[in-house]
Amino acid sequence: MNVKRNDLHPKFVELFTRTFGFTDKEFTSFMSGFRSLEVRKREVYLTAGQISNAKAYLNKGCARSYVVDEKGHERIVSFAFEDWWLADFESYYSGHPGSTYIQMLEDSELLVISKEKWQHLEQEIPKLKQWYTIKVTRHASALTRGIEDLKTLTPEDRYLNLLQEQPLVLQRVPLQYVAAYLNIEPQSLSRMRKRLTTDR
Amino acid sequence: MNVKRNDLHPKFVELFTRTFGFTDKEFTSFMSGFRSLEVRKREVYLTAGQISNAKAYLNKGCARSYVVDEKGHERIVSFAFEDWWLADFESYYSGHPGSTYIQMLEDSELLVISKEKWQHLEQEIPKLKQWYTIKVTRHASALTRGIEDLKTLTPEDRYLNLLQEQPLVLQRVPLQYVAAYLNIEPQSLSRMRKRLTTDR
Repeated sequence: MNVKRNDLHPKFVELFTRTFGFTDKEFTSFMSGFRSLEVRKREVYLTAGQISNAKAYLNKGCARSYVVDEKGHERIVSFAFEDWWLADFESYYSGHPGSTYIQMLEDSELLVISKEKWQHLEQEIPKLKQWYTIKVTRHASALTRGIEDLKTLTPEDRYLNLLQEQPLVLQRVPLQYVAAYLNIEPQSLSRMRKRLTTDR
Repeated sequence: MNVKRNDLHPKFVELFTRTFGFTDKEFTSFMSGFRSLEVRKREVYLTAGQISNAKAYLNKGCARSYVVDEKGHERIVSFAFEDWWLADFESYYSGHPGSTYIQMLEDSELLVISKEKWQHLEQEIPKLKQWYTIKVTRHASALTRGIEDLKTLTPEDRYLNLLQEQPLVLQRVPLQYVAAYLNIEPQSLSRMRKRLTTDR
């Protein structure tokens, strides 16, 4: 389904028209590269082994990204809400099969754009490349911090960080997934939450 | 100290003159942005709390990057050898004080270029921006994989990956640091190595 300007998340419109100053013509051309995709709650948008050949803008909804270890345990890497981009980053750029699963936690709307179309638009709209360079730099910063946090923080500190950075997690993500993100049992998370509430 | 072409690691010259096709004039201009810095074994090039306002190309030598947790334990994030770039990525781009320490494991030579100089050169040599975009994309891919590995792999699998990706670690990095990278005790690493050797 084609994407209309009125259906876009206001942050999407603001980012490209204001912050990056796309002209009306450029923005219309950019929008025409996307198609709208409804993905229902619990459906898996991306599976390990697939080649990720599209970026998806999360226009509405909520998702979890996870990897699966040798023993079949799901390890949650991140949660995504409105205004996030979804893809298996490594697979998208390398063209190799990916390792990431992305599952919707709510009925969601994705705006999907193929890699081919994106590359074409980057030629047409140089500002898009500028946006990408800034975006990937921020992404790498966040990942660097993610690694440092995994190496140094206790589950409790990681929980407090998560709530500070993504407060929506509390309202929209089932507890069992928050526990899986922290790599602890759901019961331990319940005890931790109780302790944190009492301490304040 | 100024940098002369003959002193540069061949990979540096090849990357910018061949792969990215810098003209002689561009390459000379690029080179003039760097200064050579000798850092002795065990010296710390970068400390947490500092603002990282330069990139450093590791022309010769070997380093470890680490962060320190609340209890004062050093957690090693990565090892670097010739042809790596050193910086606190997040601090460099955000301008905030960093969290990373970089310590030399051998007498080393760094080619250092300030952020200001780099930005100036990016204007002068557009190919440098192209290089950066590709570099940061690969870096983000590697970091993504780093997070997934931390979430899913056993220390033994992480050790085998490390040896495959950075075989120089075996010859040039003291065992205690390899153990700290894997977040295990040096004795456990010795047992693991013995087991792996016997199994083969």
